[in-house]
Amino acid sequence: MKSYATMTKAELLAEKEAVQLQYDAAKALKLKLNMARGKPGKEQLDLVSDLLTVLNDPADCIVDGIDARNYGELSGLPCARTYWAELLGCKPSEVFVGGNASLSLMYSTIAKAWSFGLKDSEQPWCRYETVKFLCPAPGYDRHFRITQSFGMELITIPMTAEGPDMDLVEEYIKDENVRGMWCVPKYSNPDGIIYSDAVIHRIANMKPAARDFALMWDNAYCVHEFEGEFVPFEDILTLCREAGRPNMPYEFASTSKITFPGAGISVMAMSEENLAYMEKLLAVESISFDKVNQLRHVRYLRDKEGTLELMKRHAEILGPKFKMVLTILDEEIAPLGIAEWAKPKGGYFVSVNAMAGTAKRTLQLCKEAGVVMTDAGATFPYGKDPQDSNIRVAPSLPPVKELRQAMEVFSLALRLAALEKLLAE
Amino acid sequence: MKSYATMTKAELLAEKEAVQLQYDAAKALKLKLNMARGKPGKEQLDLVSDLLTVLNDPADCIVDGIDARNYGELSGLPCARTYWAELLGCKPSEVFVGGNASLSLMYSTIAKAWSFGLKDSEQPWCRYETVKFLCPAPGYDRHFRITQSFGMELITIPMTAEGPDMDLVEEYIKDENVRGMWCVPKYSNPDGIIYSDAVIHRIANMKPAARDFALMWDNAYCVHEFEGEFVPFEDILTLCREAGRPNMPYEFASTSKITFPGAGISVMAMSEENLAYMEKLLAVESISFDKVNQLRHVRYLRDKEGTLELMKRHAEILGPKFKMVLTILDEEIAPLGIAEWAKPKGGYFVSVNAMAGTAKRTLQLCKEAGVVMTDAGATFPYGKDPQDSNIRVAPSLPPVKELRQAMEVFSLALRLAALEKLLAE
Repeated sequence: MKSYATMTKAELLAEKEAVQLQYDAAKALKLKLNMARGKPGKEQLDLVSDLLTVLNDPADCIVDGIDARNYGELSGLPCARTYWAELLGCKPSEVFVGGNASLSLMYSTIAKAWSFGLKDSEQPWCRYETVKFLCPAPGYDRHFRITQSFGMELITIPMTAEGPDMDLVEEYIKDENVRGMWCVPKYSNPDGIIYSDAVIHRIANMKPAARDFALMWDNAYCVHEFEGEFVPFEDILTLCREAGRPNMPYEFASTSKITFPGAGISVMAMSEENLAYMEKLLAVESISFDKVNQLRHVRYLRDKEGTLELMKRHAEILGPKFKMVLTILDEEIAPLGIAEWAKPKGGYFVSVNAMAGTAKRTLQLCKEAGVVMTDAGATFPYGKDPQDSNIRVAPSLPPVKELRQAMEVFSLALRLAALEKLLAE
Repeated sequence: MKSYATMTKAELLAEKEAVQLQYDAAKALKLKLNMARGKPGKEQLDLVSDLLTVLNDPADCIVDGIDARNYGELSGLPCARTYWAELLGCKPSEVFVGGNASLSLMYSTIAKAWSFGLKDSEQPWCRYETVKFLCPAPGYDRHFRITQSFGMELITIPMTAEGPDMDLVEEYIKDENVRGMWCVPKYSNPDGIIYSDAVIHRIANMKPAARDFALMWDNAYCVHEFEGEFVPFEDILTLCREAGRPNMPYEFASTSKITFPGAGISVMAMSEENLAYMEKLLAVESISFDKVNQLRHVRYLRDKEGTLELMKRHAEILGPKFKMVLTILDEEIAPLGIAEWAKPKGGYFVSVNAMAGTAKRTLQLCKEAGVVMTDAGATFPYGKDPQDSNIRVAPSLPPVKELRQAMEVFSLALRLAALEKLLAE
C-alpha cells in the first residue's frame, strides 16, 4: 500500500477502480449496521441484570429512615449523594442526584440561567442582547444544541491534544457576553483525550469577565476506561474554589453507560451556594426524582470500588470493539495518509479526521452501503464542520462481527471519497 | 352542642375555657403528626410491591422489538402510550409518557412557552410585557407557583360547586394577555369536586383572545375514587377539537397515587400537532425518559381494568381515613356553625372553609400541638387567601389511629380560633 499523496493520476484511477469494485460488492450485501450513537450493546445491558432484582420488597426500599418510594428528598437520597461524591471526589453536600438523564440536568441549568439567571447573575440571560457560549470542537452535538436552542451564539474553540485551546479561551472570556463553556474533561467526546493537568488548571483559574460564567463540566466518562487502569482525575469543584471562583463549575455525570442507558441515575455537583440556589428553582418543577431507582443503583453498584469492578467487565466487552476499529484504521487507512485519529483508552468514540472536504461524502457512501454513522458536522457548533473532515465513530452498539463489516465499509468509503476528491483536483 | 353564633358572650367564654383545657391536654401529648401533603401512606405503598419484581431478567425488558433499557423512544414506549390513551380516553398518538413526575411535564410546558412559545404562539411569552394566568382557587399551590416563578400575573377565579366560575373566566379570556388556566377537573385539589358537564363544555368551548392559550388540564385524580364506583369523564382533547381549538388543552396525569408517589410514571396528552412541536423542544433536553419503569408499570397495571381494580384496593385504605375526617367534622364542628366543607368521593383532600380570619390561627394552634398541615393560604395564588379561611386537610399519610388524634387536635384548634375571633369582636 502506498500513500495516495504520492500516487500518479494513473495510479489513483486504478486504485479508484479497485476500491469501487470492493465498495459495490459490500453494498450488494445490503447491510443494516448502526454506528451513529454511543449506545451500549445488548451484552453490556445484560451484564447489569441484577439491577432489576436488587430491591424486592418494601423493607428493601427504606434507607436512612427514608422511604424511597414516597415523595420527598429533592436533592436525592443521602446514600446516592454519598455514592456520587465518592465517585467524583467532591462532598455529598455538593451533590444533586437526578433522574435518568444528565442531559436533562445540563439543560435545566442552562434553561434556568436563561429564564431566571444563575446564582451570581445580574439578570436572567434572556434579558441580554447577546449571550455567547464557548464550544470546544469537535465536541458533543447535544451540548451545542442546548445552548443553540436558546439562541446563544456558539463560538468554536479548536481542540488540541491536551484539551481546548486555552490561549483562545482566555482571550474570549474577556468578553462579558461569553457566559459559559462546554467541557468533557475525560475521554472527551469524540476525541477521547483526557484534558492535561495544565489545561485543567488553566480552566479552573479562568477569570471570565462574566461573573456568572458557567463552566459546564460534563464528566460523562469519568470511570469509563476500556483499556488499562482507572485514571484518577482532580475534583473541579475544589480546583475552582481554590482559584477563587467556587460558583463557576457545574459538573455532570450519570450511570447511563454504567448500568442502563435509558434507566440509570444522573448527578450534578456544584458549590453548596449554587446548590441551595438551584434547589429553590428545581423545587418548583419537581417534588423529587426517582429515589427507588437511586436506591437500586446504590445497592447494586455499592461504591466507587464496586463501580470500577463493573467497569472492568464493560471494558472486556468494549475493549475488543475499539481494538477492531483501531486495527482496521491502522492497517487499511494509515498507510494511505488520508486520515488521522487519536487512540483513546476510554470513552465511547474514535474521532477520525478525514482528508478535508471528504467527511460528508464518506458518510453518504457509508449510508448508501447500509452503514449509518453520526452525521458529518455533528461534532461542530451548528452542525457545520468548516473543514468537512471530522467523523465520529461509535463502535459500542454492533457485535464485533457486524462491527468488522461496518468498519470495512467505512474504510472503503473513506478511500473512495479521498480518491474522488484527489481526482477532481 | 350549640352554634357559636347563637351563644352569649358568657357562654363563649365558658366554651373557650373548656376547649382551651382540652387543647392544652392534647398539646401535652407532644404529638408529631403530618397532614400537610397528599402523601400516600405506607400501607398503600406496600400494596403495590409486586411492581418491584415484575421485570426480572433481560428478556422481560424487550417489548414490541424495543429494548426498554437502552436509549430512545422520546415519547415513551408504545405500550405505555397505549396504556395512558385508554385511561384518559384519547389516542396513543396524542400521548407523551414522561418520568416520575407530571409536575415536571407541566413545568416543562410552561417553561417552553416562556422561552420559545407554544405551537400557536406569535413569540416566546418572555417577550411580552405582561402574561396573565387564570388560577381557580382554592387550588393546587404547586400549579400556581410554576406560573408565578416565571413572573406571570396570577388571577384568582373563585371555585363554585361545579368548577371554576365560568362567567368570570369568559370575561377574562377576552384579554389577550391571559394565556392560560390551571384546572383539576376531577376531584379538584383541594375541594374534591368534579367539574360539571356544563362547566367542562364551557371550558372546551372557550375562545380566548390569545391564540396560544394553554388549558392546563391536570387530571391528577382521574381514577382516584375512594368511595363508590369509577366516575367516567369526557376526553378534553376531543371536546376542544370539536369546539375548534384542538391545540388549547394540555392534559396531565401520573401513577404517583396509583403505584409509588416518587417512582411512578407520568403522562401528558395533547393534539398531535402540539405533540410534534413539543417533541422537537423536548428532544433537546432528553434522549428518552425511563422506559424500564414505564414497562414495569404497564406489565404491573396492565390496562384500565387492572388499574381500576388496584384503585379499589387503595380505596379500602383511603376510604376509612376520609370517613374519619368527615365524621369528626360532622360531629364536632358542624353543629357549631364555624366551618363548611364538601364531601368528596375521590381525590386526596378535604377542603375546609373555616370562619373568615381564622385559618392561619387554626393552623398555628395545630402546629403548636404537633400537627402539621398545609400552610394557610397555600391554596390561593401568591399563598394569600383573601378570606384567611381555606384549610386543606390531607388525611392519606397517617394511619387511622394517628389521624383520629390529628383530627381531634384540628377540631379543637378550629374551635379555639373561632372563639378567640368571636370574643375579640
